[in-house]
Amino acid sequence: MSYKETEGDALGERLHTESVTEGPPPLSDEDLRLAATYVNDARNGSRGNFKNDPKSVRLYNLYNRPTFFWISHIAVGVLLSLVLFEDPAVPNIRLDYWITMCVELFCVCLIFSRLAHQGLFSSEQNFWRSKRRLPVLVILLLTLVDMVQYVILRQIGVTSVRFSRPLRPLLLLCMDRAKQLRAVFKNILLTLPDIITVLTLFLLSVAFFALMALKIFQNRQDLVYYSDGHPYMHNYLDNFFQLYVLVTTANFPDVMMPAFDYNPWFTLFFIIYLIICLYLFMSICLATIYNNFKEHLKEYVEDSVREKQNNLQLAFDILKVETRQGGELLPKSRWMSLMRAVKPSRLDIEHSLLWDVLANDHAEYINRKEFFHVVSLLDIQVLEVKDREPEFQRWFPRCYRSKASRLIRKAVANRFFRYFIDLAVVANAVCIALDQDDAEWFFMALFVLEILLKFYVFGLKKFFHSAMNIFDFVLIVAALVINVLELAWRSISNQSGALDFLLVLRLLRLVRLVYAIDRFRVVLKTISSIGRSLVTYGGVLFVFFYVFAIIGMEVFSDKITPEPVLANRSQNQPILCGNPKLNGTQFAMNRYCNNNFNDILHSFVVLFELMVVNQWHVLAEGFVAVTHQAARIYFIVYHLLVVILVLNIFSAFILELFMLEYSMSKEPAERRESTVERKITFMGLDEDESTYFDDLAEPEAATEDIISGGQRRPELSPAMRLRRPKGANKVEELLQKMYEIEREDDESSV
Amino acid sequence: MSYKETEGDALGERLHTESVTEGPPPLSDEDLRLAATYVNDARNGSRGNFKNDPKSVRLYNLYNRPTFFWISHIAVGVLLSLVLFEDPAVPNIRLDYWITMCVELFCVCLIFSRLAHQGLFSSEQNFWRSKRRLPVLVILLLTLVDMVQYVILRQIGVTSVRFSRPLRPLLLLCMDRAKQLRAVFKNILLTLPDIITVLTLFLLSVAFFALMALKIFQNRQDLVYYSDGHPYMHNYLDNFFQLYVLVTTANFPDVMMPAFDYNPWFTLFFIIYLIICLYLFMSICLATIYNNFKEHLKEYVEDSVREKQNNLQLAFDILKVETRQGGELLPKSRWMSLMRAVKPSRLDIEHSLLWDVLANDHAEYINRKEFFHVVSLLDIQVLEVKDREPEFQRWFPRCYRSKASRLIRKAVANRFFRYFIDLAVVANAVCIALDQDDAEWFFMALFVLEILLKFYVFGLKKFFHSAMNIFDFVLIVAALVINVLELAWRSISNQSGALDFLLVLRLLRLVRLVYAIDRFRVVLKTISSIGRSLVTYGGVLFVFFYVFAIIGMEVFSDKITPEPVLANRSQNQPILCGNPKLNGTQFAMNRYCNNNFNDILHSFVVLFELMVVNQWHVLAEGFVAVTHQAARIYFIVYHLLVVILVLNIFSAFILELFMLEYSMSKEPAERRESTVERKITFMGLDEDESTYFDDLAEPEAATEDIISGGQRRPELSPAMRLRRPKGANKVEELLQKMYEIEREDDESSV
Repeated sequence: MSYKETEGDALGERLHTESVTEGPPPLSDEDLRLAATYVNDARNGSRGNFKNDPKSVRLYNLYNRPTFFWISHIAVGVLLSLVLFEDPAVPNIRLDYWITMCVELFCVCLIFSRLAHQGLFSSEQNFWRSKRRLPVLVILLLTLVDMVQYVILRQIGVTSVRFSRPLRPLLLLCMDRAKQLRAVFKNILLTLPDIITVLTLFLLSVAFFALMALKIFQNRQDLVYYSDGHPYMHNYLDNFFQLYVLVTTANFPDVMMPAFDYNPWFTLFFIIYLIICLYLFMSICLATIYNNFKEHLKEYVEDSVREKQNNLQLAFDILKVETRQGGELLPKSRWMSLMRAVKPSRLDIEHSLLWDVLANDHAEYINRKEFFHVVSLLDIQVLEVKDREPEFQRWFPRCYRSKASRLIRKAVANRFFRYFIDLAVVANAVCIALDQDDAEWFFMALFVLEILLKFYVFGLKKFFHSAMNIFDFVLIVAALVINVLELAWRSISNQSGALDFLLVLRLLRLVRLVYAIDRFRVVLKTISSIGRSLVTYGGVLFVFFYVFAIIGMEVFSDKITPEPVLANRSQNQPILCGNPKLNGTQFAMNRYCNNNFNDILHSFVVLFELMVVNQWHVLAEGFVAVTHQAARIYFIVYHLLVVILVLNIFSAFILELFMLEYSMSKEPAERRESTVERKITFMGLDEDESTYFDDLAEPEAATEDIISGGQRRPELSPAMRLRRPKGANKVEELLQKMYEIEREDDESSV
Repeated sequence: MSYKETEGDALGERLHTESVTEGPPPLSDEDLRLAATYVNDARNGSRGNFKNDPKSVRLYNLYNRPTFFWISHIAVGVLLSLVLFEDPAVPNIRLDYWITMCVELFCVCLIFSRLAHQGLFSSEQNFWRSKRRLPVLVILLLTLVDMVQYVILRQIGVTSVRFSRPLRPLLLLCMDRAKQLRAVFKNILLTLPDIITVLTLFLLSVAFFALMALKIFQNRQDLVYYSDGHPYMHNYLDNFFQLYVLVTTANFPDVMMPAFDYNPWFTLFFIIYLIICLYLFMSICLATIYNNFKEHLKEYVEDSVREKQNNLQLAFDILKVETRQGGELLPKSRWMSLMRAVKPSRLDIEHSLLWDVLANDHAEYINRKEFFHVVSLLDIQVLEVKDREPEFQRWFPRCYRSKASRLIRKAVANRFFRYFIDLAVVANAVCIALDQDDAEWFFMALFVLEILLKFYVFGLKKFFHSAMNIFDFVLIVAALVINVLELAWRSISNQSGALDFLLVLRLLRLVRLVYAIDRFRVVLKTISSIGRSLVTYGGVLFVFFYVFAIIGMEVFSDKITPEPVLANRSQNQPILCGNPKLNGTQFAMNRYCNNNFNDILHSFVVLFELMVVNQWHVLAEGFVAVTHQAARIYFIVYHLLVVILVLNIFSAFILELFMLEYSMSKEPAERRESTVERKITFMGLDEDESTYFDDLAEPEAATEDIISGGQRRPELSPAMRLRRPKGANKVEELLQKMYEIEREDDESSV
C-alpha cells in the first residue's frame, strides 16, 4: 500500500527545494529520510532492522520499493505454481523437468537476491536474529541440493524424490507481507502444548475403548458380524481406527449396526463412547483452542502496538525541537517536510488540513502524544467536495437543473423506485427458476436503464463509491456480455451453450434484497468482516493443503485412476478405479475413482473432502488398500492438524470477532472512536452523505454512520472532506481499539 | 439436600425447650420459623411465594418436606416411563391400556394435589403469577381430556391418538428442583430471535444455491447422473434437501461425485457452497449462541444472587435487634435459635464454632453483611478430628503402633508402593489385552491385598473419603463378584459366559494412571466439573428426545420392522425391513432395519443417531420412503433444534466454563476465596490432610489445596475441622464468585 508513495529518488530533490522554512533549523535530508522510514514502518507494522547509517536507510527504502517487493512475491508464487507442471502434472500442461527446473532455479535466485539485499542494510547480528531469514536460506539451499541430486540421479537412470517440494509453501510464510499468516501459525504453535495434552488423553480413551470393544466382541464373532460377512471388531488396530473414525462420526451408525442387530443394549457402548470422546473431548478441544487463541491474539496485538509506538518514538526523537522548559515539540514546518517525504503524492494544503486535525486549535507545535496519531492520518483519504457533485451537473448544469430532470431525479431518489427494482429482481429470479427465457431481455433492459438513471442522478463517482452498486453493475455487465456471447455461440453451433450456467450468476442480485433488511444486514456485515480474514485462514489452509498434497502425490499418485466412461451404463462389471486391489472396497463401490492424488488439483479436492470429514474413512481405506496399512497415519495426522487444529482456530477466530464486536457495541459511542476520529467528527470534516437524496443501500455510509455515532455538524463545510479507511483486518483492529481504550483508562486513572 | 433437616414437626417442640436465652427478648416461634424458612429458601435458591401468616408458613414447610417432594417427583417419573408400556410398547413388557391409564390417572392426581398444596399457602395473585403453575394445570387438564376421549373412542371402536403424550416431559420442566433445566430452556428461548435471523439467512442461501444447482445441472441430465442412473439435481425441493444435508456434510462427497466425474471444475460449486454455508454460517451460529448464552447466564446468576440476598434480608429483618445508635445487629442467642431451627441435626457446639467463623473476634453480635455469609456456612460439613484417626489405631492401638505395623504403614505410604500398584495395573491391562486369563486371579488377589492394606493404614473413613479410592474399591469388588458368578455360570452351563464383557470394566483402573499425571489431571478435573452439568444438558436432550420420540412413534411406528435373521447368510434376496417400499433405498441396503420408531428405546437410539448427524439423510429417506415427502420436515426440524441449537448451547457452556476457570485462575489467590473461606483458612479450621502419609491421589485434597491457595496454619488445632462443600454446578458457582468479586470491587470503589 505505502510503497507507491515512497519514491526514494524523487525524494532527495524535493527536500532540497522545499525544506527552507522559518523558525526551527531545517532537518538534514538524512534525518528526514530516517524519520520518514520510521513513520512508514510504523504504518506498515514492520520492524526495520536496518543499520542507522544513511546508506543502509537508502537501501532499506529501496528494498521496500513496490517493484522489488512484487518481484520477490511473484517469484514465490511461480515457485509454488510449478507443481502444476511438474510430474505428476495436471493433464495437458505437463512440462519437461528441465523447463520447470530452469524456472525454479531462476525463482530461487530471485528470492536469494532479495535475501542478500536484506543482508546489505541489516547489521550481521540483526540479520541472523530475525526468525525468518535462516529458514528461507535453509530452504533455498535444500532446494538447490535437491535439484542437483535429482538431475544427477536422473542422468544415471534413477528416479528419485524431489524432497524439497513440500518445503516450498514455507517460503510463503516468510514473505514480508505474510504477517497475519505468520501470526496464525505462531498461534498454532503456542496452542500445541495444551492441545497435545487434551489430544493425548483423547487418544488414550480411544485406545481404551478399542480394547474394550475387542474384549466385548471377540468372543461373539459367530453372532456379530458385518452384513458383508467381515468379522466385527476383531483386531485391536482396526478397532482403534474404527473408533477414531467414529469420533469424526463418519462411520456412524454403520459401525454400530451389527452390534445393534445382535443386542440393542450394545448400543450403549457406542453412545457412551460418543458422549465422552465426541461431545466432551471435542468441545474441550475447541475450548482449549479458543482460550489459547484469545490470549495469544491479545499478546500479538500488544506487540504490534508496542512496535508501532517504538517506531514513532524514534521518528519523533529525530524530528523534535526541545523547548527551553525541557519539553519536546514538533513544529509544523518539520511536519510538512516529513509529510512531503512520506506522502509525496499529497498537496501541501492537504498536509496542512491534516495538521489541523492533529494539532490543538491551529497551534504551531504538537507534542509527542499528538504525533502518535500520525499513522491514523496517513490512511485517511482526502476528498475535494467539488469532486462529489454528479458529473452531469458539472457538464450540463442547465439541463441537469431543468424541470424534467428534477422530476427524474426525484423519482429515482424515491424509495419506491428501489422497491420497484427489488420487485423486478424477484420477478427476474422467478422467471429464471421457471425457465422463462423470453423475459430475460426485458429484465436486462430494465436493469441497464436503472444503472444509467443512477449514473445520471448520482454521478459516476458516487455510484461507484457504493460496493452494492459496483456489485449490481458487475453482475449486469457480465450477464449482458454472457448473453451476447451465448447468442453468438448458439447461432454458430446451434447447440445448448457451455456458458449458460454462468447466467445463473444473475441470481446473485437477490443478495441485494437481503441486504435491504436491517436484521440481515448485521449478519451480512459480520460475514463480510470475516470475509477479509478468510484470506488469512485460506492461506493457512493452503500451506497445509500444499504440503499434504505433495506428500500425497509422492505416495499415492497413479495408484488410482478414473475409470473410462463406457457407452453402456448398465454393465455388471464392477468399477475398480484401475486397481484390482480396490475390489470390494467401499471406495470403488462409491465410485470415488476421481478422488485421487494424480495431480495437484485433484489432490486439493481430495484434501478438501478430507477436511469436510464425511466419508474420509472410505477415502482413507481406498488409499490404504492400494498401498499399506501405514497410510492411515497420513490421514489421521491430516485430520488432527487440519480439522481439529486449524478449523477450530478458525472457529475461535469467529467467536472472538463476535465477542469483540459485542463488547465494542457496549462501549459508549464516543469511546468507540479513536482520538483522531473524534477530532474529525468535531471539526465537521466527515465525508457527509447529505448530497445523496435517499436511503439507497450504501454500505460505507452505513458503516460510517456507526463509526461516527451519527453525530454530524453540517454547518461547517470546508472544500475538503476526509474519508476514513476501511479496516483490512477487523479482529485486530477491534482488539487494537480495545487495547487502546484500556490504555487510556489506565493512564487516566493513574 | 436440605429437606432432610427441616423436620417441621420436631421443630416446634425444640424451640419451646431451648429458646430461653439471656439478653435480647426471645423470638416468637412463628417469627423464628419464618426466618428459618427464608434462610432455607436462600440456601435452595427458591422463591417462597408463600403468604406471611403462620398457617401458610407451616404449609410451605410441609410442602418442602422431602416425602412430599419425592412423591411428586416419582409421580412425574412414573408418568414419563409409562411410554415403555403403552402401545407401541417395548416388546415383552406391553401392558393393556386400562392398566397404564389407571397408573396415569393416579400420577395426574398426585401432581394435581401437589399443585393444590401450593394453592393453599400462596396468595391467589402469586399463584397465577408463577410461570410454571398454569402450564402444569393445563397439561394435567389436557391429559384428562385426552384420556377420556381415548377411552370413549376406543369403546366405539375408533383408535385415536393420545395427543397429550408429547406434553408429558414439560411436567419435568415444571418440577421444583428443575431450576437448571428451566434456565437452559429459558436461555434457548432468549437465544431464538438472534439465531432465527442467522438461520433464515442460512436457509435463504441454501434456497439460492438449490436454484443455482437446478439451473446448472438440469440441462446436463444426459451427461451428469448418479451411478445408479438416478437423475442428478433435477428437482428444486430435492436439491434443497440435498444441499441442506450437505451442510451437515452427511452426503459429501457422494453428492458431488457425478458432477466431479463430468467436469472437475464443478467441484468449485460445492466447495464454495460448503465454505459459505458450513464453515461461515455454522461458525456464526455457534458465535451467536455463545454470545447470547454468556449474556443470559450472567443475568440468571445475578437474579439468583439477588433472590438469595432478598431472602436473607427478610430473615435478618425478623431476627435483628436495633441498637440505640440505630444500627441493626443479630445477637448470638438468636443465631443459635435460628440454627437449631434450620439444622436441627447439628450440635450446639457446632453452631457455636460456625458463629466464630462468622463473627469478628468472638463478638456477641454480627451485622447484616456478616449474616449474609450464613448460606456458605450451612453447606459446610463439621468433622471431629478424632473421627479421622484410622480405625485400627483406635481399636488396637498397641498393635497399630508396633514396629512391624509401623514398617507396613511406612511401606504403604511410600510412593513406590503406588508405583508398584500402578505397574500391576498396567501388567493386568496387558494380560487382559493378550487374553491371559490365568493371571487374572493373581492380580485380583494383589488388588484386594492393596485395598486391605490401605484400610489398615489409613482407616476406612479416610479411605472412602477419596473418590479415587472408592472408584478402585467398586471396580475390584465388582470384578470379584463377576468373576465368581462367571465361574459358577461356567461350571453349570459349560459355555462362554454372558458376563465376560463386564469384566472389561477392570480396564477402567487404567484411569487411575492417567489421573496420577498432573497435566492430565487438569483436563480430567475439567471433564468431571462438566460431568455434573452434563445431567442438566442430558435433561434438556431428554425432553427433546421424548417429544420427538412420541411424535415419531405416532407417525412411523411399525412402518419398518427388523428382518428376521435367517440361517443362510449368503442369500441373494434383498433386505427390505418388512416394507417393499424400501426396495432400492440406501436405508435397506445399509441394513438399518433396527433403526425404527417401533418403541421408545429404539426411537431414542434413532434420535441419538440423528443427533450424531452422520447418515441422517439415509435414515430420513428411509422414513420418507415408507410415508411421505413431508416427513423430511420432521428430520429437518429435529436437526435445527437439537443439533444446531442444543448442541451449540452445550458447546457454549463448555467454552464459558473454560473462560471462567481461566479468568478465575488469573485472580489473586485471596480474591478467589469467599470471605468465609478466607476466614476458615485464617482460623486454621481447614480440614487438613497432614495425617495422610504421602501424596496419594486424593482429588478432594487437591481441590482444596487450590481453593485455599495452599495457605495452612497447622499450629491451631481445635477438635473440629470444617470441610467445604463440593459445588453442584461449576459454571454457576464460578460466575457467582466472579459476580461477587465484581460487587466487592464496586462497593470498595464507591
